Amino acid sequence: MIKAGIIGGAGYTSGELLRILVNHPKVEIDFVFSTSQAGKPLTAAHPDLIGETGLVFTDKINPDVNVVFLCLGHGKSKAFLENNKFALHTRIIDLSNDFRLDNDADFNSDSFVYGLPELNKNKIAAAKYIANPGCFATAIQLALLPLASENLLENDVHVNAITGSTGAGVQLSETTHHSWRNSNISHYKAFEHQHLAEIKQSLNSLQEDFENEILFIPNRGEFTRGIFATLYTKTSKSKEELIDLYQTYYKEHPFVWVTAEDISLKMAVQTNKCILSLEKKGDYLLVTSIIDNLLKGASGQAVQNMNLMFGLEETTGLKLKPSGF
Amino acid sequence: MIKAGIIGGAGYTSGELLRILVNHPKVEIDFVFSTSQAGKPLTAAHPDLIGETGLVFTDKINPDVNVVFLCLGHGKSKAFLENNKFALHTRIIDLSNDFRLDNDADFNSDSFVYGLPELNKNKIAAAKYIANPGCFATAIQLALLPLASENLLENDVHVNAITGSTGAGVQLSETTHHSWRNSNISHYKAFEHQHLAEIKQSLNSLQEDFENEILFIPNRGEFTRGIFATLYTKTSKSKEELIDLYQTYYKEHPFVWVTAEDISLKMAVQTNKCILSLEKKGDYLLVTSIIDNLLKGASGQAVQNMNLMFGLEETTGLKLKPSGF
Amino acid sequence: MIKAGIIGGAGYTSGELLRILVNHPKVEIDFVFSTSQAGKPLTAAHPDLIGETGLVFTDKINPDVNVVFLCLGHGKSKAFLENNKFALHTRIIDLSNDFRLDNDADFNSDSFVYGLPELNKNKIAAAKYIANPGCFATAIQLALLPLASENLLENDVHVNAITGSTGAGVQLSETTHHSWRNSNISHYKAFEHQHLAEIKQSLNSLQEDFENEILFIPNRGEFTRGIFATLYTKTSKSKEELIDLYQTYYKEHPFVWVTAEDISLKMAVQTNKCILSLEKKGDYLLVTSIIDNLLKGASGQAVQNMNLMFGLEETTGLKLKPSGF
Amino acid sequence: MIKAGIIGGAGYTSGELLRILVNHPKVEIDFVFSTSQAGKPLTAAHPDLIGETGLVFTDKINPDVNVVFLCLGHGKSKAFLENNKFALHTRIIDLSNDFRLDNDADFNSDSFVYGLPELNKNKIAAAKYIANPGCFATAIQLALLPLASENLLENDVHVNAITGSTGAGVQLSETTHHSWRNSNISHYKAFEHQHLAEIKQSLNSLQEDFENEILFIPNRGEFTRGIFATLYTKTSKSKEELIDLYQTYYKEHPFVWVTAEDISLKMAVQTNKCILSLEKKGDYLLVTSIIDNLLKGASGQAVQNMNLMFGLEETTGLKLKPSGF
Repeated sequence: MIKAGIIGGAGYTSGELLRILVNHPKVEIDFVFSTSQAGKPLTAAHPDLIGETGLVFTDKINPDVNVVFLCLGHGKSKAFLENNKFALHTRIIDLSNDFRLDNDADFNSDSFVYGLPELNKNKIAAAKYIANPGCFATAIQLALLPLASENLLENDVHVNAITGSTGAGVQLSETTHHSWRNSNISHYKAFEHQHLAEIKQSLNSLQEDFENEILFIPNRGEFTRGIFATLYTKTSKSKEELIDLYQTYYKEHPFVWVTAEDISLKMAVQTNKCILSLEKKGDYLLVTSIIDNLLKGASGQAVQNMNLMFGLEETTGLKLKPSGF
Repeated sequence: MIKAGIIGGAGYTSGELLRILVNHPKVEIDFVFSTSQAGKPLTAAHPDLIGETGLVFTDKINPDVNVVFLCLGHGKSKAFLENNKFALHTRIIDLSNDFRLDNDADFNSDSFVYGLPELNKNKIAAAKYIANPGCFATAIQLALLPLASENLLENDVHVNAITGSTGAGVQLSETTHHSWRNSNISHYKAFEHQHLAEIKQSLNSLQEDFENEILFIPNRGEFTRGIFATLYTKTSKSKEELIDLYQTYYKEHPFVWVTAEDISLKMAVQTNKCILSLEKKGDYLLVTSIIDNLLKGASGQAVQNMNLMFGLEETTGLKLKPSGF
Repeated sequence: MIKAGIIGGAGYTSGELLRILVNHPKVEIDFVFSTSQAGKPLTAAHPDLIGETGLVFTDKINPDVNVVFLCLGHGKSKAFLENNKFALHTRIIDLSNDFRLDNDADFNSDSFVYGLPELNKNKIAAAKYIANPGCFATAIQLALLPLASENLLENDVHVNAITGSTGAGVQLSETTHHSWRNSNISHYKAFEHQHLAEIKQSLNSLQEDFENEILFIPNRGEFTRGIFATLYTKTSKSKEELIDLYQTYYKEHPFVWVTAEDISLKMAVQTNKCILSLEKKGDYLLVTSIIDNLLKGASGQAVQNMNLMFGLEETTGLKLKPSGF
Repeated sequence: MIKAGIIGGAGYTSGELLRILVNHPKVEIDFVFSTSQAGKPLTAAHPDLIGETGLVFTDKINPDVNVVFLCLGHGKSKAFLENNKFALHTRIIDLSNDFRLDNDADFNSDSFVYGLPELNKNKIAAAKYIANPGCFATAIQLALLPLASENLLENDVHVNAITGSTGAGVQLSETTHHSWRNSNISHYKAFEHQHLAEIKQSLNSLQEDFENEILFIPNRGEFTRGIFATLYTKTSKSKEELIDLYQTYYKEHPFVWVTAEDISLKMAVQTNKCILSLEKKGDYLLVTSIIDNLLKGASGQAVQNMNLMFGLEETTGLKLKPSGF
């Protein structure tokens, strides 16, 4: 059994990680670290875990676990790792954005690998440290990687994406107050979202000369889970060529599905899937990309990375029941 | 024109009051008092008022206005009135629960009148001070007053009611976080809700001997506005007698409507109406009562009281477009 | 009083028209025509009208009314007018898309005027027949008219807009089944929405040489009311110049408001407003445009047109309480 | 492997059954029968099954499967079984209400067993035919069985429960139109819901003399999944005695959890759990009971029954990730 430790156990991504790991056949949760919740049962912060676990939050880490998941706020993972030492063999998967960019990746004479399995599967399998991608970044990259892999990104890319309220985290705020959020929509950080950096880094790792703009408007949706993204760019390839390109690219990747049918957000919610729908409209390729922001966009992908790192079947513990409704 | 002052201008009830008063043909908003917002435009706290008003929050009161609405938290109105003096002629309408019970009603050698127009219309017209009823209390009382008026309450009353998230106020809290509240339901203060006291006081003012229990479960709904209440009690009266009783009781009250048809919450939302649907099921009378918690349950009723106090048509400024959807 | 007839009374746009007209101080509803509902009270189809009106649906028209609103499905208005004659003085306001394009506008040796008051106010005031704009078309045009008025549209325009479920009409369908729609998002008719034709027609009426593409993705949102649209295009004008341009353009138009603040959908819902927020991002102008699809996007705009045609203040009957939440 | 056939594959309960069975380690889906969908892939009716199965709907049954699930409308199962014969060894689990009452249970010189494992575990394990309980019936019975098991039901029981829109089935209807259902609440069949019969039958099987009334108001909620029920009745037992009674009763039942903490609906959604929260309020026991109507209230319970019938661990295939949000 893989002994796992979770750091920062009271937030949404750690809660979702726990929901997966309590049923993962190869993992034993060794400890869940939370200074604010220490001594309380996990169900105090995640009451839906009733009947799943009797574990209690702790403020002590076990430095000898096989894998540690860092579920801390952005900017806090680095500081935590500097102040807390783990065994040489311990793998670390960080869900924040602290180590995602190449410039930030060096650590302990080793390097964080960007944990997008559909881009870096072999590197992940060999990695000691993983920087788990951002949620928007995952949905957008998976919609563009096949193009970049063939140097087909030749024009600006226009992206509109909408995320559920869990994307904003567990902290209370005006824009997550139910009275405000319900039946409402707004956008934020238009053209300036921080995930653009990791997206461009990944695309350039495949298509070095890609320098066009990615014009990205992120929106706040009134649902709780999921990201629904539409992307379009000009390309001379036909619809058939494009579908073939995408299906070929994702042939060995069990969580990405390519279709020419219409799709809707809930098809991906509660699963670790990314579903891509392709349309050709005049000169434009229009890709719709859907994921669950807490699963393929965070904790599910973290477990997928862990599976790869420990030589398990990539889908272990991640064959989740779709929600349907 | 009636000059109105509003105390505590950043909350939901004051926002709703402003939305009504900006279109009220007989009212001029003289000042909106908020220590936290002083100097900012009203639209800083209530952005949907864009284009409706150029007013700015102030931390100075004008003691000479014709009417003051107190939109402060429960327990704060009394203290405010002790520290701030208004002109002798100034009418005061308090939306908190500070003065609703007879034991609390005395003030300044005068007395607060309980501002439920369907119970106290004449007293309200003559009052200087009004204690505006609670939202649940309004929905429940209007469903029972006709029975009490004929001494027909002879058994326990079973009440289940569900309220929108605006009922919990503008403060951030775990149970108003969108991620938690959306698609969720829970109950709170079962059998112990504070509105029971004012409900019983009103019923006893009509039917002195009523001593049965009112078993009331309040629920948190995932919508933002409205209260949907079902109440049942045993009675030997027939359905026809009951409908006749209710319609007669509310004949002179322009906001309460009695029907034998099925009703649903949104029929009352965005209006100052209370709609009552009556069914007879075996020995039981089942009443469904719906209101908008911010209108008939708070700010709309406050304006209705103001209209009565100043001799205006009761519906002035309150003929609001139903939302339909 | 203006005597009004409504044709097709059981749908969403006629329901909303009725909700406005029951409180309009200068209008008397003469008849509401519906073959499917004839003989039933209006409240059978629109139960929230309880207490507002005792009117009954009819299958007979009164050809002598002052104004007729056609609330029929697209393609049915023309046929209806051919089979039913009205008095010479009767004004007709059609809410379908039958007469919106110049090629379709001729009728009875007269012509339908495109009823967007912010484009055609004087023509509307003099018109006998009005083709009321589409909902998406209204939100998008109001975001672009000031640019076109100064020949400033020089590049492609990228539009993403999301509409509530009332936009799909009262008919039952899989994509309006609550189990499917709730917490879901999808898009439809990408780059091919039928409103593009009327949008281009209006823009070309101001800027004849505009030939760039308008790339428009319409989305189905899970809320019931409202359209939230984001649009961007390249322009060399500064943010200050643009805000000045927009505010100047809309100075005499009481329902359009221009701001540099962030906005969210619910600020416009339940009102006849269109609120525009402007940002400059590098070379791009980003406009966010919000309306209520049933009000400014349909029935509210129809009443606004009626007001202009009969010489009333443009806002008569349309000073609606914002919903806030 | 257990070969399973599903009859009536296009509805909500069969979709949910498929979502469970595609990941069930001991089941192979042999056929999915649907006359309306024959020849189409399962994903045509259940698009979220993309990547889970390549199966195609059929209009031919395989009479030799090990288990058949009937997911037909109420009243259609009996007719189907009369017209279609299965092998002697084939177990049948019917999700309709055709065989739930003892008077209806006889079939083929055998008898349907009421498939509530927490009442009838041993009978289910030995049964050939199972009548799967109703969704409301499950939530309500599980809240009352421990009392009945000790003959402690001595007074009327007051029940208010609210269900998601999937409870109304896949058919289109006015009360499942999103524009109507969203942010709305209504009730139906008050005091007369058909599930009362099976509830009373189960209670009387434990407490023969129970003859008090169960006053049950079912409500339509705006969420899609889940039932939230509150029940109260008078009892002289203390809170501690009651919690002990309930925990003892459910000790061997892996899906029912008893707590004294507050609970909310989403704790049970997407799981096969029933969570019961107990409070003592004066003389009253108040029980809150939550389930997912499609899982513990339908398809999950059907699989639980199948597991028992085939000697599998009761939780096989049913350790589902909670949704949390």
